[in-house]
Amino acid sequence: MSDTATISRKADFPGMVTASGAPWHYLDTGATAQKPQAVIDAVTQAIGVDYATVHRGVYGRSAEMTLGYEAARRRVAEFIGGKEAEIVFTRGATEAINLVAYSWGEMHLKAGDRVLLSQLEHHSNIVPWQLLRDRIGIEIDVCPLTADGVIDLDAMEQMLTPQHKLVALAHVSNVLGSMLDVKRAAGLAHCVGAKLLLDGCQAVPRLPVDVASLDCDFYVFSGHKLYGPTGIGALWAKAESLDSMKPWQGGGAMIDKVTFAKTTYAPAPQRFEAGTPAIVEAIGLAAACDYVSHIGLEQIHAHETRLVNQARDALRGMNDLTLFGPEESAGIISFAMDGVHPHDLGTILDEENVAIRAGHHCAQPLMEHLGVTATARASFGLYSDEEDVAALIRGIERTKRIFG
Amino acid sequence: MSDTATISRKADFPGMVTASGAPWHYLDTGATAQKPQAVIDAVTQAIGVDYATVHRGVYGRSAEMTLGYEAARRRVAEFIGGKEAEIVFTRGATEAINLVAYSWGEMHLKAGDRVLLSQLEHHSNIVPWQLLRDRIGIEIDVCPLTADGVIDLDAMEQMLTPQHKLVALAHVSNVLGSMLDVKRAAGLAHCVGAKLLLDGCQAVPRLPVDVASLDCDFYVFSGHKLYGPTGIGALWAKAESLDSMKPWQGGGAMIDKVTFAKTTYAPAPQRFEAGTPAIVEAIGLAAACDYVSHIGLEQIHAHETRLVNQARDALRGMNDLTLFGPEESAGIISFAMDGVHPHDLGTILDEENVAIRAGHHCAQPLMEHLGVTATARASFGLYSDEEDVAALIRGIERTKRIFG
Repeated sequence: MSDTATISRKADFPGMVTASGAPWHYLDTGATAQKPQAVIDAVTQAIGVDYATVHRGVYGRSAEMTLGYEAARRRVAEFIGGKEAEIVFTRGATEAINLVAYSWGEMHLKAGDRVLLSQLEHHSNIVPWQLLRDRIGIEIDVCPLTADGVIDLDAMEQMLTPQHKLVALAHVSNVLGSMLDVKRAAGLAHCVGAKLLLDGCQAVPRLPVDVASLDCDFYVFSGHKLYGPTGIGALWAKAESLDSMKPWQGGGAMIDKVTFAKTTYAPAPQRFEAGTPAIVEAIGLAAACDYVSHIGLEQIHAHETRLVNQARDALRGMNDLTLFGPEESAGIISFAMDGVHPHDLGTILDEENVAIRAGHHCAQPLMEHLGVTATARASFGLYSDEEDVAALIRGIERTKRIFG
Repeated sequence: MSDTATISRKADFPGMVTASGAPWHYLDTGATAQKPQAVIDAVTQAIGVDYATVHRGVYGRSAEMTLGYEAARRRVAEFIGGKEAEIVFTRGATEAINLVAYSWGEMHLKAGDRVLLSQLEHHSNIVPWQLLRDRIGIEIDVCPLTADGVIDLDAMEQMLTPQHKLVALAHVSNVLGSMLDVKRAAGLAHCVGAKLLLDGCQAVPRLPVDVASLDCDFYVFSGHKLYGPTGIGALWAKAESLDSMKPWQGGGAMIDKVTFAKTTYAPAPQRFEAGTPAIVEAIGLAAACDYVSHIGLEQIHAHETRLVNQARDALRGMNDLTLFGPEESAGIISFAMDGVHPHDLGTILDEENVAIRAGHHCAQPLMEHLGVTATARASFGLYSDEEDVAALIRGIERTKRIFG
């Protein structure tokens, strides 16, 4: 698909209309993506006529469901260029980062070791490391941003020391759309012997991601932001990292042999999937990978870039409006209007069937850096189109008139 | 519904036919329950036309989804006689027990304190406490069973000491169907100052559960065993217990204010729900609670008891067959056939469209107690009927002929 202007796939998405049947200008895909019918159908089939448990049944349906669940693992691995045995299904990116913090962090870090984050991280890539700090006494350093809101890798180069054992960064900022130069970040981290963890929540729906060529050590993302179900996400890690990690949650399916005296554990990735997994959700996520791959991430990225540039160009021309973030951003734009709280802007836009997000976006340290308590954020998806940009701009102009 | 013989609701369950359209004799409800159309419809609507994120959106659809998610919390609380603020949504019972072990356990237990489990616990109620033992040095005691496979509360009374801070027991055994005398267990635990945690996975789909009258301190269960979606479950705990628990997983939605220097946390239950929750799954679970409540748990229990008794009576008359567990069991029966491995039995039954489970049922210490490595288990659900029992018995007789 060379003509990105032809991408508008709203018809595939049952959620993309309002209750009255009017078009919905959904610009909150950064919070969560709407689901294509193909994903809904996969979920309906898995929870209905195909439904059974996995890994345990001796009857045919359960054996088939196990094949489906493990095929989903393979599909998710393939989607980001990893291997099947390197994917752990989690509830989402948040749980995946917590898993690394508990299971890898407590194995490999000790008091005095340093973890480097950045000023633009989502709370899910801050708080787990603070909790680890509380438990074992690591130190957390914060890489600053460039003037336009990109993680400053020159500064990072200066900051990194052999005491740094982990660098954990957003691949794409959920507030600014800023894209990390991952290969350089990986090189810098590895140069001091640190591992690199990437929060890929906003990247996997917006950019081609290949963990092998990115040369990162951990990659996490959420299914619901990739047009898949809620309740599912993934941790990818190199097999040797997974193998070195201790169990975190205990229960069924993650064990080898249980006695009250001593329990032994299954190999990775099963060791990290205690209990009945989110079977239906994993299968739905695989369907989402299929759907997104079929369109192509190069195409989706080009499409969203075109829309975000249209929005930025229009907003740049307005008085009393501040744009945040770099010129080159991946499908996400944040802004503020002088004298109008982002929540009020969001409420007025909602009257026009335009859904944006207003708030701190789970990135309070970034808000502090920007000198605001909240921004308005428009985030695009593969289904977004020029009508959505036009509706956003109309709504902002109306808001200016109301507050003017 | 006074005539329990009239309960056969297979028509409500799209999964209750084989691929060829023949009736499916699904006797593995203890592993996971099939889903009624009402639950599938609730999921389809939530993931489709109603879909949005929760807690964060300033637009109408997100506000409505937030109301739906919190209504689901209220519905689940009501279903077990608890209060809304006392329900934490988790991936399932396994995660709920791990949450208590990390968050309550590390706050309230110290080296030398004792936790009392029983010989029949599921791995999910063993391994989290062993992991806690590894971390902080608690001791684990194991309450024995009576000759017929019920947790021996006389023995427990003798074992409990003021060093015991927690008693964690299955409300209903997933292998034997044995029902715990919860009120007595609660009295014994509280008498020495210990808290009582109940693994309610097999109880909530089979018995009326009212946490207030049971007088327990923690109650956990999985949605998928209660005819609801995968990827969702709940921890109920008294508000004062939840309030006393430290954060476990860090991330968005569980915080009050994040700075790199210091982060403060939201009150319970939000403190324990980091990241975007399993929104669709919570709404599906509420629909499952509605469905089950409409039939009534007294009726379901009577119905399953009648079926399990029919099965037990038929099996008791067979040579070379060992029945495990008490005469009074809740919808679950385990057995073994001399000279036939349970897996072979399961495979032959599958040819007759009878699905049972064969294995250790994530209860290896119980298998050791029974002197077997595996049992065959038939577990009933609200949709089971006399045809299922008859098909089971026919299949077992055929297996006897094949192996005879």
